Amino acid sequence: MSRFDTVTIIGVGLLGGSLGLALKARGLAGTVRGVGHRQVSLDAACDVGAIDEPYLDARDACAGAHLVVVCTPAALVPAKLDEILPVCAERTVVTDVASTKAAICAHARNTWPKPLRFVGSHPMAGSEKFGPEHAHPDLYVNSATIVQPRWDLAADAWDTVVGLWRAVGSTVVEMNPERHDLLIARTSHVPHVVSACLALLVTGLNDARPVIGNGFRDMTRIAAGRPEIWRDVCLTNRDAILDGIDALMKRLEEFRDMTARDAADRLAEFFDSARKARHEAVDE
Amino acid sequence: MSRFDTVTIIGVGLLGGSLGLALKARGLAGTVRGVGHRQVSLDAACDVGAIDEPYLDARDACAGAHLVVVCTPAALVPAKLDEILPVCAERTVVTDVASTKAAICAHARNTWPKPLRFVGSHPMAGSEKFGPEHAHPDLYVNSATIVQPRWDLAADAWDTVVGLWRAVGSTVVEMNPERHDLLIARTSHVPHVVSACLALLVTGLNDARPVIGNGFRDMTRIAAGRPEIWRDVCLTNRDAILDGIDALMKRLEEFRDMTARDAADRLAEFFDSARKARHEAVDE
Repeated sequence: MSRFDTVTIIGVGLLGGSLGLALKARGLAGTVRGVGHRQVSLDAACDVGAIDEPYLDARDACAGAHLVVVCTPAALVPAKLDEILPVCAERTVVTDVASTKAAICAHARNTWPKPLRFVGSHPMAGSEKFGPEHAHPDLYVNSATIVQPRWDLAADAWDTVVGLWRAVGSTVVEMNPERHDLLIARTSHVPHVVSACLALLVTGLNDARPVIGNGFRDMTRIAAGRPEIWRDVCLTNRDAILDGIDALMKRLEEFRDMTARDAADRLAEFFDSARKARHEAVDE
Repeated sequence: MSRFDTVTIIGVGLLGGSLGLALKARGLAGTVRGVGHRQVSLDAACDVGAIDEPYLDARDACAGAHLVVVCTPAALVPAKLDEILPVCAERTVVTDVASTKAAICAHARNTWPKPLRFVGSHPMAGSEKFGPEHAHPDLYVNSATIVQPRWDLAADAWDTVVGLWRAVGSTVVEMNPERHDLLIARTSHVPHVVSACLALLVTGLNDARPVIGNGFRDMTRIAAGRPEIWRDVCLTNRDAILDGIDALMKRLEEFRDMTARDAADRLAEFFDSARKARHEAVDE
């Protein structure tokens, strides 16, 4: 990626703050502008060196920028795109980092001038931690970033966004936004919902603590994430999540049935096929 | 714990092999006898130094032993207790390591002489790895071991078993076997079933690989465990697991309902209460 004079990051939490640090550390940006709706977040982002200039107003921060990265929660991205559209000149490249893509990409397609200079992205980085104080310049190293296919976008905008993610250490995978949302529902959103449900299963069981082992810790770790982020994920990827929840409940019903009937062979097959599916999916 | 001349370990996999190594490393046993039903497992246990003497016959191995630890899968423990009862003299202390306790402890109570010298244990150690080749002398260090309450057991037998686990580095928690099974169903067995179900959700989705992140890896890691172990867990702790599955499905139904209705506030509450429950349960 060629170097930018000015990059604007809207939302300076873990993802936005880390992107700022990554750009600065690699000399990819002259000035990094950061936009927040609370002065305290902006101060924190400045303190850790993630941004050079703090802004409370997104339009002010986008005026004259060469690249804008929207790092707000998913549910806020469409409104933020509406807000910055007037000042994002024909030459400004805009992308986002939201973990749901279909609604956001459709919104941009329906509202922005063509050829589209908004390119939807989803860098698969982050953790249950949040806030600029946990930002890290190498957060994106060895991650994968899903980027919407280039076919009807402004070619230079697509090249810029792909170049951005590669420059901060990520591998880029092109994927249709609807397919992305279905797959991410099954591999991230539904597991997150399940993690929350499992954590709730021990509510009030005060003597459970000594029997809690690494399995429970691993299985509930992502339930420690921010509630508002996951509320938004559910609202913005509702249909794919409901479809995944239904598929999960069907599996649980099958398991329930074979266990209630003491079907030893079927239980062994169930766990064996799960082990194989896991191995094929993650290569461990 | 005082030093034993002869300890017999029935089943020389990860748990049994690690116990042998732990006893040898700490000078707690003169001779460690190991029982397996396959010569290759016994050879492996000898090779890593987990046992001194290999036996294919459990009765032969228990004759004259001071302490017997049954480390077979849970479903095989009752039959193994029946098998060794004739040779486990009045003075032999017997324990096990199975992750379900109610059926095993009831079986011993119904079949062994009183005061009972069988003391049910569940050391909360191990991983998805298995086999003596993964055995480690410090596997039990910093673990918790659930031991059935002493109230109607032979006092010296109970003291010996508690001393055994403490000597290899574990903290002992007394717990009623039925309560143990209910809690372990919710904190270990149901999470394991869910892990398997989640792994199965990506079966056939060959393009899912790039979107798989740490959340999915963590949530499906325990699905890599041995199918036969988990089949046995389900068969031996059926009712508590079914109860836990029902509680989980109720939570999933609630989630499904609030998501289908775009109930933003209720979704935020759901994730917030899950985060708090997780924090209270594991202190992270």
